[in-house]
Amino acid sequence: MNYDPVTHRRLTFYDARDRFMEGTDTPRDYLERCLAVIAEREPVLQGWVVLNEAGARAAADAATQRYRDGRSLSRIDGMPIGIKDLIETKDMPTQMGCEAYAGNFPKNDSAVVRALREAGALVLGKTVTTSLGFLDPGPTTNAFDPVRTPGGSSSGSAAVVGANMVPVSIGTQLVGSILRPASFNANWAIKPTFGSLNRGERLGLSQGHTGIHANSVKDMWETAAEIAVRAGGDPGYPGLQGSLNLPEASKPRRLVALETEGWARADASARTLFEQSLEKIAGAGIQIIRRADSPLVEVLERAIQEASALSMRLISWEQRWSLENLVEQHPGTLGPSLVRQLESGRAMTLEDYRICLLEREHARHCLAALSTQCDGLITLGACGVAPVAAQVRNTKFPTGDVAFACASSLLGAPAVTVPALQIDGLPLGLQVLGMSQQDALVTSIAAWVGSFFKHEVPNNGGIAHR
Amino acid sequence: MNYDPVTHRRLTFYDARDRFMEGTDTPRDYLERCLAVIAEREPVLQGWVVLNEAGARAAADAATQRYRDGRSLSRIDGMPIGIKDLIETKDMPTQMGCEAYAGNFPKNDSAVVRALREAGALVLGKTVTTSLGFLDPGPTTNAFDPVRTPGGSSSGSAAVVGANMVPVSIGTQLVGSILRPASFNANWAIKPTFGSLNRGERLGLSQGHTGIHANSVKDMWETAAEIAVRAGGDPGYPGLQGSLNLPEASKPRRLVALETEGWARADASARTLFEQSLEKIAGAGIQIIRRADSPLVEVLERAIQEASALSMRLISWEQRWSLENLVEQHPGTLGPSLVRQLESGRAMTLEDYRICLLEREHARHCLAALSTQCDGLITLGACGVAPVAAQVRNTKFPTGDVAFACASSLLGAPAVTVPALQIDGLPLGLQVLGMSQQDALVTSIAAWVGSFFKHEVPNNGGIAHR
Repeated sequence: MNYDPVTHRRLTFYDARDRFMEGTDTPRDYLERCLAVIAEREPVLQGWVVLNEAGARAAADAATQRYRDGRSLSRIDGMPIGIKDLIETKDMPTQMGCEAYAGNFPKNDSAVVRALREAGALVLGKTVTTSLGFLDPGPTTNAFDPVRTPGGSSSGSAAVVGANMVPVSIGTQLVGSILRPASFNANWAIKPTFGSLNRGERLGLSQGHTGIHANSVKDMWETAAEIAVRAGGDPGYPGLQGSLNLPEASKPRRLVALETEGWARADASARTLFEQSLEKIAGAGIQIIRRADSPLVEVLERAIQEASALSMRLISWEQRWSLENLVEQHPGTLGPSLVRQLESGRAMTLEDYRICLLEREHARHCLAALSTQCDGLITLGACGVAPVAAQVRNTKFPTGDVAFACASSLLGAPAVTVPALQIDGLPLGLQVLGMSQQDALVTSIAAWVGSFFKHEVPNNGGIAHR
Repeated sequence: MNYDPVTHRRLTFYDARDRFMEGTDTPRDYLERCLAVIAEREPVLQGWVVLNEAGARAAADAATQRYRDGRSLSRIDGMPIGIKDLIETKDMPTQMGCEAYAGNFPKNDSAVVRALREAGALVLGKTVTTSLGFLDPGPTTNAFDPVRTPGGSSSGSAAVVGANMVPVSIGTQLVGSILRPASFNANWAIKPTFGSLNRGERLGLSQGHTGIHANSVKDMWETAAEIAVRAGGDPGYPGLQGSLNLPEASKPRRLVALETEGWARADASARTLFEQSLEKIAGAGIQIIRRADSPLVEVLERAIQEASALSMRLISWEQRWSLENLVEQHPGTLGPSLVRQLESGRAMTLEDYRICLLEREHARHCLAALSTQCDGLITLGACGVAPVAAQVRNTKFPTGDVAFACASSLLGAPAVTVPALQIDGLPLGLQVLGMSQQDALVTSIAAWVGSFFKHEVPNNGGIAHR
């Protein structure tokens, strides 16, 4: 309960590169400082399923040598990174938070992991996911209060970044799995345009996305861009659009303030804080457009009003066959939310699914219709700060309500969580959204929002703590 | 060298259903007749990797009982079927014609396989594929001449249907892997609209399709439709459009005669036969539109002029990460065409890939622009009859030239091979193509073409041979 977005010191990486090049710091030393934080905080945080310290140290030494030789591979050469345990890594198991996958070890690198290695990043460990990326939680605690949920499904990826164990991690989002835990753990995070980052072996769900958690907008964007240039997007998609450099912060002229289905479910304190934030932004000369101001915004709001229920139906149908195989092979190992998903999928027909697709497509058209009306959209990152885990464990959303995060999943549109706010010393994110393929513009607006709220204080790679 | 499309007796299934319901035949007896053909011909044909005779017999007995009880599950209840060995089956290994996957046995049913079982079909065995579905051939021989290639990559699926071992099999197509082997083995086959049949665990390639080989247009369509209603299409796609019943044969008014890149590479005899076939069709009062007649056809022909090279580039990029994992884990096990694919992928950049996507999208727009100009398109199924395997083994296309089959892959458009022609007693198919999502219309035109060429003689489920 001590998070202050303005003074909080964040473990960033971009600022360490100059020191690596000058020779006043090395990737190996940076990694060792990360490992020291992990040693200290992991017993409570429980964000990692497995660490490959030896592999990371060897990779760090190789990166150290590259910087000495003046031939670093990329902007993320030597960067320690966590990988959500849904994604395959050749040197660590991929157990997906699910008993049925205990010991699963395919020895493959997913496309993003291979791209990270090619760019010189240190694949340090696998981070805890809710079971199969759905709702049944793992052991991870919130980086700012251990009685609270870290959110999910990218629970570990969000918490290990929030706890300054690593500067960056990889997450995935189907409904609200990147943006919401990022909000709960004071991360920057991007859920890019659908198809922008190669999902490798995980293409089975039509709303699945790979994204980035980070402690700075610069590390967030640069990691995404360095991956995309090497691994591209999903098959058939053009991949993340934009340069390798962080787009310059760009002050928008007009922002749509989006309610989403979350507004009705948000805490009073979160609503108040959001209204105050909008006033502050409007005070900087930015026009804020709300649903009452524009029939086009109203029609979009209606189209996303049941985004999470619609998303769950789409997923239920698409997930049915893999869950059928799982329950046949490993009866009794699915958590309660996955059992409900399977039952819901079994009850659906192809026509039901087609209707869901039509509704999603309609929502996407409604968003596209706003493209000349605004530079971007803004909303909350979550319904409030991270709830106390024990209070939500047996509710519909055991890792917190997905309401605000889900719209961008349904829309396939880029969204960035900005760790700009706090309530009673706990983090709450703002969320900037935009049009499909406009990830760079959304990031530049998010960077402006972040600097406007003056929240980013690098901790200098922890070097001052040596 | 004894194939005559008019008199050839084909093992069909649809005509057996009435006998099953009357009680004059049973799925178990039908299966035993298939097994007898397999016992006789498999030593030369080598179309199967593995058979599950016991499982199929048990499933056949259950189907037999359902017909007795008047509660058959679908139009394909009791139908023996072969599954290309790229697709997962819970009761048989999935070895993909590749040493690296020897013994691979995931114990999952791919979505189409689960749908087939739910519909009562008998999953009899896995059929030979070229290595990983690319060009390096397996042991299968052509159903009509054992010195000739069966085509690929769906080598076994095409040959076992051509040899009347089963009435239907499942194939897959990236470039020319269903339509071409169908042409070489006198199959009916549908390569449906992209995304129409659920690819399950095989979503990694943006031109991948699942399709159906059969000995009759009725079994072909009904199998596709029974799968689609249960397993749908790829995630995010509406799935095969059309009713469960075979669309009525429909005589088109206007057909575009498409050259594709194949025309320049077709045998003289195949070209002559195609011209004669077009004359015959024109003689029935159907307007034939050629590239010289229409600038819109000309622009489409240009857009697909290098369809196979463009497809190979798309695949090279998309396949790179899985091939990298494979060569790391199993060095030296890739065949020469896969090694070339990997090298080509490594040499590509994301921008190269984006340009390929733009070219493919342009070709698709060119096809769509013809939608008011014609009812469908017609071309050859292959450059000629199946070549002698030894003569093509060390060429660019060791299972025959993909030229005519590739256009529909690139276009994502539905295409049906009609086993209407022969040259010197060996089969050659006609190919009917159409607009995206118009699978039912394409099938109805193909059915008309088939009946116009009077080629379909059911062999009565082999019952006369008992």
